[in-house]
Amino acid sequence: MAHLTSREWRLASRPVGMPEPSNFELAETDVPTPGEGEVQVRNRWLSVDPYMRGRMMDRESYVPPFEIGKALQGGAVGEVVASSHPNYAPGDKVSSMLGWREAFTSTPEGAMMMKLPPVGIPEQAFLGVAGMPGLTAYAGLHRIGQPKEGETVFVSGAAGAVGSLVCQMAKLRGCKVVGSAGGPDKMAYLAELGVDAAIDYKAAPDAGALIRALKAAAPKGIDIYFDNVGGDHLVAALECARPFARFPICGMISGYNATEPSPGPANIVNVIPKRILIQGFIVTDNQDLMPEFMTDMSKWISEGKISWRETVKDGIESTVDAFLGLFQGENTGKMLVNLTGEG
Amino acid sequence: MAHLTSREWRLASRPVGMPEPSNFELAETDVPTPGEGEVQVRNRWLSVDPYMRGRMMDRESYVPPFEIGKALQGGAVGEVVASSHPNYAPGDKVSSMLGWREAFTSTPEGAMMMKLPPVGIPEQAFLGVAGMPGLTAYAGLHRIGQPKEGETVFVSGAAGAVGSLVCQMAKLRGCKVVGSAGGPDKMAYLAELGVDAAIDYKAAPDAGALIRALKAAAPKGIDIYFDNVGGDHLVAALECARPFARFPICGMISGYNATEPSPGPANIVNVIPKRILIQGFIVTDNQDLMPEFMTDMSKWISEGKISWRETVKDGIESTVDAFLGLFQGENTGKMLVNLTGEG
Repeated sequence: MAHLTSREWRLASRPVGMPEPSNFELAETDVPTPGEGEVQVRNRWLSVDPYMRGRMMDRESYVPPFEIGKALQGGAVGEVVASSHPNYAPGDKVSSMLGWREAFTSTPEGAMMMKLPPVGIPEQAFLGVAGMPGLTAYAGLHRIGQPKEGETVFVSGAAGAVGSLVCQMAKLRGCKVVGSAGGPDKMAYLAELGVDAAIDYKAAPDAGALIRALKAAAPKGIDIYFDNVGGDHLVAALECARPFARFPICGMISGYNATEPSPGPANIVNVIPKRILIQGFIVTDNQDLMPEFMTDMSKWISEGKISWRETVKDGIESTVDAFLGLFQGENTGKMLVNLTGEG
Repeated sequence: MAHLTSREWRLASRPVGMPEPSNFELAETDVPTPGEGEVQVRNRWLSVDPYMRGRMMDRESYVPPFEIGKALQGGAVGEVVASSHPNYAPGDKVSSMLGWREAFTSTPEGAMMMKLPPVGIPEQAFLGVAGMPGLTAYAGLHRIGQPKEGETVFVSGAAGAVGSLVCQMAKLRGCKVVGSAGGPDKMAYLAELGVDAAIDYKAAPDAGALIRALKAAAPKGIDIYFDNVGGDHLVAALECARPFARFPICGMISGYNATEPSPGPANIVNVIPKRILIQGFIVTDNQDLMPEFMTDMSKWISEGKISWRETVKDGIESTVDAFLGLFQGENTGKMLVNLTGEG
């Protein structure tokens, strides 16, 4: 029958600094039979993403904060198990924003539900390369970065879900790419992605060392800096920017768990003589690019021009571990939680 | 006869921190009779501007650094006294970049010489409201700021040559304007300019106080921040920015004389959730706007819609004092040196 129970992760308390398992609680809840216009979905894959840390704080922002005692939210891919909505039928694969849980019943609008298009890629790719991280990379690089053939693009968090796609898209645009990530495994991954130079930031203990590494990797300077990290990486980018450089600012994960404000970039004045453009962006403002993105991305994937990796943890119990792992650099490519039991 | 001598200010040594009079030396030099294609000019007004501090450092930038032992350069307005160039005749009023001196002989190109247009404003206004500071205000506000009627514009250095024009142009565009400057005289001047709220930054000892003052002045936040100051002002603007705010970065005078790097804006991460655009710019990249600017500005001046002030020091000897005064906030409006002897 269509009556289900679901385990869901709730925010038990607001994290201060690095979140701890005790900030979260796993609770069991009923998933009602769908009423008129509702759909019941069993999730198969959950997404955890760095931006979720921001929603755990009680502050005004572009999305409301998570509420204490309520289920967290995030990207998920699942399968319709029951439906009282004319457009959805059992067996349909859907993406939604009702992650962090095993199952739910909702109207399609309430869940931001979309049927997965039949483009021949694995379902969980709609949480990564063909989903929000993919569109994030595409929109930030093209709309703000405006890459031109022969330019040099610096990408931080280059082995992550977004960064690894920015690196590959920039290569497809004829750019030279310098990627930064942490540790030998990720250096090897960046080489596989075809970047022209890789910087191991764990071997660069401060901004000065990072600047030296970036100057060595890009002696003529950088035209685009795609920022996922902030902090010393932003300082190095400001130092090495060429005139009229563009900085799409996607994330600043280095500061997300700071309890004191992290130092700002002391060389921000460089924006004037170098006429640098710095622009923060949010993927949801760029939904208008989705059709173009899906066309390009499907083509690139089918031609073998874009590859991706996943770091997968199994079972609803592992969701918090997966989320915390993002801040330890545990993921190469997209961090996912697999609920299919087929891991 | 056309043979002149000229006193000129030379860079004696590179300043460290706040420049001192000993970094400059006044020297006398010959001004040769103009050869074929050359023009001999006696300067009548000299401009001193904050950006000149940057050229006193030995670093690569968009203009080469001033050389030790050579005359400094900057905007000037003068009168042709002799000419071997078909387009220039004695008596012509010209602007040039060969300031910091009483007279010179040069080709028009070598001096970036332009005849003053006959638009019925005082000659020295071509160093201010109708010159480089005017175009700076015009280009930064319009091209980067993109003001829309009803938006709120925050201007730092609002009583200065550029800032005072930004305030007035933003009012002409139907914006609410909050200006920041230092001390009661400048507060009175900002009121005269018609700003909606004025902040005395000297009464705001730190970024926190400036944030409180800006929140009180613009409770709904700011859409544009025209930055002449940097430092705490930039922090306050990031804190009070509304979504999709634009920050034309014209100058960061608060840091120009720092011997240690000034702290960067610790809240730079705000650019992401607020999707802020920060863009540094240089007036010389915006020369294409000059005709449009002169048309608008002449009209505004003739209609009494733009006013301006000058802070004038007399005689070539006072040039260094005038320059140093910029960093003490001595000027209201444009800081000028009057060489006409008619002061």
